[in-house]
Amino acid sequence: MSKALPKRSENYSEWYNELVKRADLAEHSAVKGCMVIKPYGFSIWEKMQRALDDMFKATGHQNAYFPLFVPKSFLEKEEEHAEGFAKECAVVTHYRLKNNPDGKGLIVDPDAKLEEELIIRPTSEAIIWNTYKGWIQSWRDLPLLINQWANVVRWEMRTRLFLRTAEFLWQEGHTAHATSREAIEETEKMLGVYATFAEEWMAMPVLQGLKSPNERFAGAVETYCIEALMQDGKALQSGTSHFLGQNFAKSFDVKFVNKENQLEYAWATSWGVSTRLMGALIMAHSDDNGLVLPPKLAPIQVVIVPIYRSEEDLDKISGKINPIVEKLKSLGVSVKFDTDDKYKPGYKFAEYELRGVPVRLAVGMRDLENGTIEIARRDTLSKETVALEGIEEKIVSLLDEIQANIYQKALNFRDENTFRIDTWEDFKVQIEKGGFIEAHWDGTADTEEKIKAETKATIRLIPLNDSTEAGKCVYTGEDSKQRVVFARSY
Amino acid sequence: MSKALPKRSENYSEWYNELVKRADLAEHSAVKGCMVIKPYGFSIWEKMQRALDDMFKATGHQNAYFPLFVPKSFLEKEEEHAEGFAKECAVVTHYRLKNNPDGKGLIVDPDAKLEEELIIRPTSEAIIWNTYKGWIQSWRDLPLLINQWANVVRWEMRTRLFLRTAEFLWQEGHTAHATSREAIEETEKMLGVYATFAEEWMAMPVLQGLKSPNERFAGAVETYCIEALMQDGKALQSGTSHFLGQNFAKSFDVKFVNKENQLEYAWATSWGVSTRLMGALIMAHSDDNGLVLPPKLAPIQVVIVPIYRSEEDLDKISGKINPIVEKLKSLGVSVKFDTDDKYKPGYKFAEYELRGVPVRLAVGMRDLENGTIEIARRDTLSKETVALEGIEEKIVSLLDEIQANIYQKALNFRDENTFRIDTWEDFKVQIEKGGFIEAHWDGTADTEEKIKAETKATIRLIPLNDSTEAGKCVYTGEDSKQRVVFARSY
Repeated sequence: MSKALPKRSENYSEWYNELVKRADLAEHSAVKGCMVIKPYGFSIWEKMQRALDDMFKATGHQNAYFPLFVPKSFLEKEEEHAEGFAKECAVVTHYRLKNNPDGKGLIVDPDAKLEEELIIRPTSEAIIWNTYKGWIQSWRDLPLLINQWANVVRWEMRTRLFLRTAEFLWQEGHTAHATSREAIEETEKMLGVYATFAEEWMAMPVLQGLKSPNERFAGAVETYCIEALMQDGKALQSGTSHFLGQNFAKSFDVKFVNKENQLEYAWATSWGVSTRLMGALIMAHSDDNGLVLPPKLAPIQVVIVPIYRSEEDLDKISGKINPIVEKLKSLGVSVKFDTDDKYKPGYKFAEYELRGVPVRLAVGMRDLENGTIEIARRDTLSKETVALEGIEEKIVSLLDEIQANIYQKALNFRDENTFRIDTWEDFKVQIEKGGFIEAHWDGTADTEEKIKAETKATIRLIPLNDSTEAGKCVYTGEDSKQRVVFARSY
Repeated sequence: MSKALPKRSENYSEWYNELVKRADLAEHSAVKGCMVIKPYGFSIWEKMQRALDDMFKATGHQNAYFPLFVPKSFLEKEEEHAEGFAKECAVVTHYRLKNNPDGKGLIVDPDAKLEEELIIRPTSEAIIWNTYKGWIQSWRDLPLLINQWANVVRWEMRTRLFLRTAEFLWQEGHTAHATSREAIEETEKMLGVYATFAEEWMAMPVLQGLKSPNERFAGAVETYCIEALMQDGKALQSGTSHFLGQNFAKSFDVKFVNKENQLEYAWATSWGVSTRLMGALIMAHSDDNGLVLPPKLAPIQVVIVPIYRSEEDLDKISGKINPIVEKLKSLGVSVKFDTDDKYKPGYKFAEYELRGVPVRLAVGMRDLENGTIEIARRDTLSKETVALEGIEEKIVSLLDEIQANIYQKALNFRDENTFRIDTWEDFKVQIEKGGFIEAHWDGTADTEEKIKAETKATIRLIPLNDSTEAGKCVYTGEDSKQRVVFARSY
């Protein structure tokens, strides 16, 4: 069995890296900056995808697929967008290799140089809005509500598994609307979908709000986001939804005839979440023993480990357990009866704990005699011996209880680590300890940058529908209309 | 309304291109060789993915994700493999653009040249087996049964939507085994999964067999395939499953300790199907009116079109139809009640016919009075008026009937277009007319190439478990152990 994980309190960053590796979630690949998502990690991502995809479809969106490549000239069209992404993109310049005439191996064939370089999509606004030009002629074609599940590449020098990698997986919604109001409603609706997903599925409370102009998506008029607080007191941006105005419609000349028979540019939104959510999920709940998964996203919700000495004993246990497994499956519970004899029960217990399986049952010969079973919760690490009779219903309600408990724990943590700060001295002290800081800001980029330079804290968001309490900027003392949320972040 | 499709009998190729475009399945993108899969086309692909993914999981496979990029040196490692893919790959040479110092726009930053070029994966054996080296140490780690859903790029100059595009979507299974026998069993098992999917879901009969050495996957010891016959008499390779022997294990040094405590190279398989299946599906069943979809893969299985003059009429129709819609949904039927008033019923009928919706119901005021409804089948284009009472059960059994009928029709077509040919003269005459030709072949690559040069026919497959009837080669007259299947192909 592998040695214990590093402790969160001693080295949070090492704890995260080791946990991702040992729980078989992901690993660094031989390609610099790219990760391999291992089967167990991917099965969690698949559950996230399925839940999100269902929510997108329930809100009227359809999936489609657009090319991996963006011609360089397309990227150039929206100026801010180009500025934002040009410095970190993978560029395809050739379309063929050939045998090295001077010896072994392959070389790039200089005769196969592309006339125009292709960029691996860092995001797909450019290629999609170029396509929408052909799809949008009349108000009848709107709204156009499309989502894409895809891989994207943003060249990164310093990478961390799930949190920051050169290639990552994500979904990107791209919608077109007849009016500004409709597009803003869409932007806010999808932010709401993300918040619901984070809270109800990931059991992770999030704040919702607007980014400051400095932190906006390149090419957006307004960027909305959800932000979660990790256990080390740092914030993690978990999803963004952008109101793009008519910027892309103008760059790609996407006009439609409105109901009044006039030509108008279409209004756009885009919104996305990525495999970064895996990082958020891991950091929000896990402990020094390993992963803690909310039942709704756990690939295995319940594992049953038999404890036996002989094949005959195992047969007896199986006779009792198999009907329970079937019953649980029929109740929609994902359950594994682990009869693998390559590993001992103690090893299995540690492995399933590491992998965050929410409920673990253990059953031996004594239990069979007594009509009992041992039930262990991953979230509280508590164990009890209960009657086998009616165990299925007990498990179903226990899974709900665990889901709620994990959320509540994260919410309590966030509440305990959110601070109203009114002086610059207090700000500097608190930011070293971590957490969300609600403070007044004078609204200038200059102040925002100075605060960042002095403390590494950024404005995570400007809360929506805030009770708009006016005050004085924590840094300059200038007037402020409402508090904003500062934190150090991933 | 758009004008009629070209007829299959007049220009099959134009018919296909127009159908793909008009039924909103896909279109060429602004990026040469790449397609955009439109929402309706993508929703069919999603149904295929879901069905296949369930079958992969039921046979013990798990999904994972590996990098988009393959370092050039990895591709070089398996010699045949490199030879097979080097000539058609997209090469990333730089990781940054910068503002053009001489004027407008962006240029590739010459300071951001990669030390080693990265190839966009044309297939992932190289990157995956390089990763497996870290995952496989002992027989306990085997079998390793992994699948990946991904995009791949093979540079193509002449492209056709779904059938041949530079970028396409696929799944690639990559498994590792302790013995040759196990790996061969896996290869054959997955071929069987593909055949079952093609026949039971796509309603498309397929032949199963082995490729000749000439047509093997680059790096494989043996390539198995399924082949279907399109309505123009050409074959379409619909899926391949490769036994890779120890080739990749040796190239990437993947050894494990077997039960006898000896070091051994692992045995490999890989298998894949792609968005090419969309092309097969379209061509196998569709007619001059448009797409014909098997119910199991139809995003909309039943459409209900109300015929009315006033809002009041529509309300009355809705009152009757809404409960039917709910009942159908509860029976697992995907149904759309199209109350959109932007288009007239006649337009809608033509649109749903074009899009291949298997069952169309039309209901007007007269029907309400009579307690009837008009039901139209897409596969036979027949219509009848039936009682509303019990319509739901009738539809469920009709969908099964349509699925079976579409399959049977395709099977009859294939039977009628499969020919046992014993002379070279007959061969040359028949190949011009199309179809599968079962003929004897002397087993040499030389003969295979000559037949191809003279007739454009290739050996589609060497049937498995054939009744091994010996004979004389149709071209050379030399001895032959069994008939093989020739055809022209996509």
